[in-house]
Amino acid sequence: MTKAYVKSAAPLKVGIAGLGVVGAGVIRLLDKQASMLAARAGRPIKVVAVSARDKRKKRDMPKGNWRWHTDALDLVSDPEVEVVVELIGGSEGKARALVEAALKAGKGVVTANKALLAMHGTKLAMMAETKDAPLAFEAAVAGGIPILKALREGLVGNRIERITGILNGTCNYILTEMRQTGRDFGVVLKEAQQLGYAEADPSFDVDGIDAAHKLAVLTSLAFNTQVDFKAVHVEGIRHVSAVDIAFAKEFGYRIKLLAISHRTSRGIEQRVHPCMVPADTPIAHVDGVFNAVAAEGDYVGRMMFEGRGAGSNPTASAVVADLADLAAGRRLHAFGVPAVKLQPLKAAPMAEHVGRFYIRLIVRDQPGVLADVSAVLRDEKISIESLVQRGRSEAENQPVAVMLISHEAREADMARAMKKIAKLRSVLQAPALIRIEPL
Amino acid sequence: MTKAYVKSAAPLKVGIAGLGVVGAGVIRLLDKQASMLAARAGRPIKVVAVSARDKRKKRDMPKGNWRWHTDALDLVSDPEVEVVVELIGGSEGKARALVEAALKAGKGVVTANKALLAMHGTKLAMMAETKDAPLAFEAAVAGGIPILKALREGLVGNRIERITGILNGTCNYILTEMRQTGRDFGVVLKEAQQLGYAEADPSFDVDGIDAAHKLAVLTSLAFNTQVDFKAVHVEGIRHVSAVDIAFAKEFGYRIKLLAISHRTSRGIEQRVHPCMVPADTPIAHVDGVFNAVAAEGDYVGRMMFEGRGAGSNPTASAVVADLADLAAGRRLHAFGVPAVKLQPLKAAPMAEHVGRFYIRLIVRDQPGVLADVSAVLRDEKISIESLVQRGRSEAENQPVAVMLISHEAREADMARAMKKIAKLRSVLQAPALIRIEPL
Repeated sequence: MTKAYVKSAAPLKVGIAGLGVVGAGVIRLLDKQASMLAARAGRPIKVVAVSARDKRKKRDMPKGNWRWHTDALDLVSDPEVEVVVELIGGSEGKARALVEAALKAGKGVVTANKALLAMHGTKLAMMAETKDAPLAFEAAVAGGIPILKALREGLVGNRIERITGILNGTCNYILTEMRQTGRDFGVVLKEAQQLGYAEADPSFDVDGIDAAHKLAVLTSLAFNTQVDFKAVHVEGIRHVSAVDIAFAKEFGYRIKLLAISHRTSRGIEQRVHPCMVPADTPIAHVDGVFNAVAAEGDYVGRMMFEGRGAGSNPTASAVVADLADLAAGRRLHAFGVPAVKLQPLKAAPMAEHVGRFYIRLIVRDQPGVLADVSAVLRDEKISIESLVQRGRSEAENQPVAVMLISHEAREADMARAMKKIAKLRSVLQAPALIRIEPL
Repeated sequence: MTKAYVKSAAPLKVGIAGLGVVGAGVIRLLDKQASMLAARAGRPIKVVAVSARDKRKKRDMPKGNWRWHTDALDLVSDPEVEVVVELIGGSEGKARALVEAALKAGKGVVTANKALLAMHGTKLAMMAETKDAPLAFEAAVAGGIPILKALREGLVGNRIERITGILNGTCNYILTEMRQTGRDFGVVLKEAQQLGYAEADPSFDVDGIDAAHKLAVLTSLAFNTQVDFKAVHVEGIRHVSAVDIAFAKEFGYRIKLLAISHRTSRGIEQRVHPCMVPADTPIAHVDGVFNAVAAEGDYVGRMMFEGRGAGSNPTASAVVADLADLAAGRRLHAFGVPAVKLQPLKAAPMAEHVGRFYIRLIVRDQPGVLADVSAVLRDEKISIESLVQRGRSEAENQPVAVMLISHEAREADMARAMKKIAKLRSVLQAPALIRIEPL
């Protein structure tokens, strides 16, 4: 049996690439908690080199006696660096080149880069194993929540059946604000941008891409499959309007951008889209910038983990947890099993997904509209559970909102129905569709 | 740097002591998930020997080709056994003798025994380290929730400020049932016993001892202090009545048995007692037999973990997670740092705890009662935030319930006030006291 404790007192020597808010947070944490970490990990964790383009930029971090490399790739050739911490970001370019070079050189890699892992995760895990170099990325998913460790090690005895996550803090903040203030998406987004909760180009967040990157990584770890970002069905929250939020409130739902992966008889379903979830479920109460991941295992049942999904300090907490694992000599497989054993993901076609739907139409208030809409749904074998019309004005021909909830229906049938409904003359906008998730 | 992956394909050889519901669950899990576990842990986990008193007892588990020892201690002398899984229970007797003998022999120990750890945890960790033998006990706290791993490894970079847990499923079930049905403690307890959710002798659960055992272990791990069960202030839920639950409902609270440890300027406070918690907090929504642990770290902020805290399968899931760590050669310190570095716990005296209190009195309905009660509180410098009287009858002299909520008050002052109030002639029962926890 492996001996229980690390005997070496030599520090683990780390090189950090990227000194943005996360990089600075990692340096602050390693500095402030140095002696505590050394006791816990069995030996010190020491930053011996860093890399960032602008040396003179003001950063919220202590000064240190490390080498400064202008080119991140020089961290790989720096003979003292044992582990490279990649905090540059992006699925290609410098970040990818650095991680590949470090693994090829047999150095350990710790990264927070979900885009890189979503695109190249399996290949990188293969490279890591070929060189027997550790590759760890707790910070890439759900920030400070140690969800990858929980799935990979804590729930190791379980076959995971389903993962449901709130993985994007920006979207969750926007949806929470919309609910609490009744304001519309555009207004709240603008405010989130001013507060620094959303990027100037918010597409990665609000179009669901960031959550999809994280889901692809989670799926691979949970189901021991190759990372398959292309198989994720992705929708963002731009089409969610104040009227939808108000409807949800009234009917006992909350709207959340969920990331779901689910074992089905047709394969594994991966999807990111806004959902109506019952207001009395725990995940409905995860508000603001918080993230949460619920996991269902065949032995453990349903678990939920909630915490801060982003930000300098929570992300640094996750990066340092990986470094402490490496310092303590704790072994891990990047995606839970040896990379060669990761199975290709058999993707369940989204077209065959079955569920209930909320549909919101903006229509001209005139006789016959509902008859036309109902006829389309009937033709696609979709039955209506309830229908509510709001904002009726005195005058005819004014725009009004019509909200429908369907009984269970096939995704493909619903998509066809939506196309037909969009073409009706009295329907003034593309219909908005939000899936109802039972949980 | 330590090599990343386990190269040995030799199985980890395990001996299991105790074949109750958890032991049988572990054997079922190891059998059913054998190949998945071997892939994840890097090598198989094999049960080579078991021990239980009655060999012929019917058990819900597959048959296996293992040696059967009538005396659990024979697992230690069984040369093939590398790791002993102790599932006998109890802080003394056979369980303690077995764990000590195994560690002395340099064998690994995995246990679910919170009583043993609460009483002898520090000493056992010392023994483990002397022999460089791993000691792991994920199953001892919060069942299937991998909370010890999360604190020890996932939040390794954080100084933990506070732990708040719902750690006893029996109490949480009883309090949830009381809330949902309006019935009183005794009735619900009886039903819980019939359903198998409570023991015939329910004292360990309903008097808070089980939760206190778990809290003592959690505290040690979170704060890197020696386990100090005696320093835990413990109260159970027997005095919580339907009238308290109804009051809580009306005023926006829920009553939960919480286990709290908290860093204060006076030392570490450890306490287990019923609490009124605001109904809109996440922990208020953890219902039935579920457990939850919230942790506050200085970098990660507030995290919450929720899941099944007991039962054959969830507990087996946690035992197997420890076994997989050992199989994979992942090193760990039992309480987060080397046992010699665990500091004696400086206990904050409960008498100096400051908080708000709910007080429920059963009094004779006659003039002057409230004046007497108010005078006692005034004399102890306790000010009243609100007061509600219920169940007023037509006739004088009948018993009625009076509920008070205090402003912030010192525990010692409140205790003195309660003694004086109990002696008032018009007060018919000892006052019931429930602390209001802000969260």
